[in-house]
Amino acid sequence: MPAFQTVRGMRDLLGEEAQTFTFIIAKARETAKLYGFKEVITPVVEPLELLSAKSGDEIRQRMFIFKDLGDRQVALRPEFTASIARLATSALKNEPKPLRIFSVGTVYRYDEPQRGRYREFWQSNFELMGSAKPEADAEIVLVTNSFMKALGLQNYAFKFGHIGIIRGILSQECVDEKTQNAILQRMDKKEYDEAFKLAPTDKCRSMLEGLLNLKSSECFETVEKIKVYVAGYEKAKAAVDNLGEVLRLVVESGCPIEAVDPAFARGLEYYTGMIFEIYIPQLEIALGGGGRYDRLIELFGGESTPAVGCAHGIDRIAIALQTQKAAITSEGEKRALVLAVNETLKVEAWKIAQMLRLSGVAVEFEVMGRKMAKALEDADKRNVDYAVIVGERELKECAVMLKSLSKREQSIVPIKELAKKIVD
Amino acid sequence: MPAFQTVRGMRDLLGEEAQTFTFIIAKARETAKLYGFKEVITPVVEPLELLSAKSGDEIRQRMFIFKDLGDRQVALRPEFTASIARLATSALKNEPKPLRIFSVGTVYRYDEPQRGRYREFWQSNFELMGSAKPEADAEIVLVTNSFMKALGLQNYAFKFGHIGIIRGILSQECVDEKTQNAILQRMDKKEYDEAFKLAPTDKCRSMLEGLLNLKSSECFETVEKIKVYVAGYEKAKAAVDNLGEVLRLVVESGCPIEAVDPAFARGLEYYTGMIFEIYIPQLEIALGGGGRYDRLIELFGGESTPAVGCAHGIDRIAIALQTQKAAITSEGEKRALVLAVNETLKVEAWKIAQMLRLSGVAVEFEVMGRKMAKALEDADKRNVDYAVIVGERELKECAVMLKSLSKREQSIVPIKELAKKIVD
Repeated sequence: MPAFQTVRGMRDLLGEEAQTFTFIIAKARETAKLYGFKEVITPVVEPLELLSAKSGDEIRQRMFIFKDLGDRQVALRPEFTASIARLATSALKNEPKPLRIFSVGTVYRYDEPQRGRYREFWQSNFELMGSAKPEADAEIVLVTNSFMKALGLQNYAFKFGHIGIIRGILSQECVDEKTQNAILQRMDKKEYDEAFKLAPTDKCRSMLEGLLNLKSSECFETVEKIKVYVAGYEKAKAAVDNLGEVLRLVVESGCPIEAVDPAFARGLEYYTGMIFEIYIPQLEIALGGGGRYDRLIELFGGESTPAVGCAHGIDRIAIALQTQKAAITSEGEKRALVLAVNETLKVEAWKIAQMLRLSGVAVEFEVMGRKMAKALEDADKRNVDYAVIVGERELKECAVMLKSLSKREQSIVPIKELAKKIVD
Repeated sequence: MPAFQTVRGMRDLLGEEAQTFTFIIAKARETAKLYGFKEVITPVVEPLELLSAKSGDEIRQRMFIFKDLGDRQVALRPEFTASIARLATSALKNEPKPLRIFSVGTVYRYDEPQRGRYREFWQSNFELMGSAKPEADAEIVLVTNSFMKALGLQNYAFKFGHIGIIRGILSQECVDEKTQNAILQRMDKKEYDEAFKLAPTDKCRSMLEGLLNLKSSECFETVEKIKVYVAGYEKAKAAVDNLGEVLRLVVESGCPIEAVDPAFARGLEYYTGMIFEIYIPQLEIALGGGGRYDRLIELFGGESTPAVGCAHGIDRIAIALQTQKAAITSEGEKRALVLAVNETLKVEAWKIAQMLRLSGVAVEFEVMGRKMAKALEDADKRNVDYAVIVGERELKECAVMLKSLSKREQSIVPIKELAKKIVD
């Protein structure tokens, strides 16, 4: 029989990779707590109707859609925001604003699998709802910054834009919203020629083209350049001012900025304001990103609620940590193997194992009944720190043999001092 | 527009309930570490073929089955064991034994929803593969015991059985395996009359009926009674001896035992040895359970590998903790609201918020731009401990106003002492 495999595009996480994932998730959760974000756990399976309410066509065509046994049209969530919007318009409708909501879990998209892109992948997600102020935008950026710092990532940097700049120009040039979306989608993919072809007038096209030349690495310089460039486009001007205010707070917090790019667009159609992504030099794909989406809650039937949020790709962060060889293992945790020299001492050894666990030592009990040499060899291979050998002679004196597998030395240790000796 | 809802049988976990879930998951993970179980993360979506390889008909009919966009027959996992067996016969095939594997996550079954039973639910899962010895069985029980203890559950107790007792009698009475499974399934549901009707002979039927009278609360007494009862049934006798050995280690570890019941059967067909479940007096449903399944890995195309495992229902444990009003909140964590008395001080307040977070204080920044009285009232409602008010006069002296919302008192505190003052 050939071995079973995972479904194409999905994968098992084992050993260090699984540890890296739980480490990243723990850091996301710590960060959420530090900023007052409350965790919610929503289902992986959601009504198709909910997930279709906001997703652009592009995501909808890549969803895992099916009928449950009760003939309900359902799908695996492709991201968290629809589920959080559902909460904001139902169970959390009457909660005082601002709402700060954190989630973490798997999401599903039927994409062509490649490095850093899987059909089941993990995201952490932060949403701040109820405030239209730049400090709310800045807080979402800062949360991401703190998260990256807590992970120990090196040389990460933010890229910023503001969807209101492009939309401000386009709407003043009388481009309808559908065409605006089409242009933004192509700009997001950096298909600028195709994007600009959709502009209805030469003036509009050249305004868009000009945006490509305004990028610079000093962020406030760029902001000033954009301000001058969009003078006369009232909404675009307001967007730049808003971006400047957000950046002021972001810079005050020491977030590293790689670029401010007025031609930067993010795929999702629902953004209305500041947008950002985060990168490390070693990877071309973003580790996460987000932005402001002030009209989304309305779309789900709720009251008009300004909101800003972000999501982080845990699979990609894991690759980033691996690439940078970041240390994720918690130092100082000691592991011991406990074994009896013969069957009659098994119960005594068993009790000693339990006592050690109560003191916080990670203990593997020898459950294979192997000869001692074989058991020790195996433990050594797996980097177990100590072997606790329970023998008759030592036991009579309330002691055991403690063998350091790394230092290749052993000594007789009273049982009452055993835990301390191992932990220290 | 009516508010969106979750898919029938699935639910959102909010507020304290979400906290309870993350608390339980963290304790499961700690317990795994303490016993040397390595975490693996497997996909929620698995090939139908894999999930069908072992599940009895009953579970198969309740699975969420569908085709992905590549026309692959897939399903949402109804439990973890099939995925772990896949690993044991592929990626982990050549790892030294014993294998100790831990998983936690959602599983899916299309059951009629009721309290403690959802169509998406959470399990923690422990598997110990490679040892046929009673200390392996006992370790799985002990892991469950340590987990329950770590959670702070009161008055929980174990129920034990051994599938080899019933099977031993039946096979010596020449009952084929299919009929054995049918009998065990009905006994699991306590449909004893229907179960015993399937016995082919009067002798066989009366042997089964007699098992119902052997239960007692003193576990070794029961074991002795069963031994006498099954004398002459060689395999059944060996099963009781094995159960006795497991119980000896379990009792030595102080696990509370409610009953040893030779008529106890668990639904899943693949058990071959000791089985157990865990209960609290306040709930009729088991919080978890497990047992030995020595033939499962073969079924997945691997080498014959003895194995024992267990799963815990996190949704049910959450109900148990709630019923017992167990304290799950981490004490001593302080929360603060930081706000500026006017817009010009916003950046200063922002920096102070960031400084406090670096000291581990959970900080909500006032992102709504509300009047102070309103912001304080709201923070008080949500049990925030302190408000840090950044005003011009205090700032000149490098200080802020610190207001204890619970004690209704305030004082001027130098910024450099602020974190300490809040944390202490």
